[in-house]
Amino acid sequence: MLTPSLEDYLEEMYRSLSETKKTARVSEIANILGVSMPSVVKALKKLEKMGYLIYMPYGEIQLTADGKAKGEFLVKRNAVLKNFFELLDLSCDAGAEAEAVEHYLTYPIIKALEKWVQFMKIRGYVDEFRKFHSSESCFESKDE
Amino acid sequence: MLTPSLEDYLEEMYRSLSETKKTARVSEIANILGVSMPSVVKALKKLEKMGYLIYMPYGEIQLTADGKAKGEFLVKRNAVLKNFFELLDLSCDAGAEAEAVEHYLTYPIIKALEKWVQFMKIRGYVDEFRKFHSSESCFESKDE
Repeated sequence: MLTPSLEDYLEEMYRSLSETKKTARVSEIANILGVSMPSVVKALKKLEKMGYLIYMPYGEIQLTADGKAKGEFLVKRNAVLKNFFELLDLSCDAGAEAEAVEHYLTYPIIKALEKWVQFMKIRGYVDEFRKFHSSESCFESKDE
Repeated sequence: MLTPSLEDYLEEMYRSLSETKKTARVSEIANILGVSMPSVVKALKKLEKMGYLIYMPYGEIQLTADGKAKGEFLVKRNAVLKNFFELLDLSCDAGAEAEAVEHYLTYPIIKALEKWVQFMKIRGYVDEFRKFHSSESCFESKDE
């Protein structure tokens, strides 16, 4: 079972690799995620044990087929959530909201969120929702 | 700053109290949350320091005005999320999904989610969304 932290590593590894660039180095991943090299090594060893990546000669790392499939799913999940939050509230930091909850939602819910974004766009309800959203709310926070 | 765990304690305390029942005992809270008495005592002491509750004579606990306001907000937040997940996907465990993400969403997003549920119901788009939702998805999980 991938922890939220391991999901972030795999997501970033998949994101930083492309067709032309098939391997990554520990230092690159440490830079992108802003964490220390020993933390990256520790995480990558766990991902290797789970069959998501392999160490190549000269310290390069390559995703396995499973790692690519899972990485693709994680990147797509993040994009679905970002699109969802963008549509829901223009003033929010959609990227930050997506990062905060992506590990805690089940797959059927992610799929339903994507469907909702499609539904609102295809049926042309986005502007109508924006107007509705800016009207008065009956849920006022006692939090602030 | 309330941690997810402290939020759960305060939410349950507020939920278990009513107009006729203004105080709670450690044993009741331990029973409701299914945790040990020492864990409850530890959490309640933190909440007391934050000004959300006070210890009464004979071991009873009462929420302060701040505690009630915050508790009301937490209970309402949980209800908003449950309604949202119920509308989004009939087959999901809306309660479990709400519990999983409630601590990680910002207040403007909770408000926007409530607005969306209202929008869908008031404009009569719920059935239309259900039909759309059951159509084929282009986001298939590589996860399963």
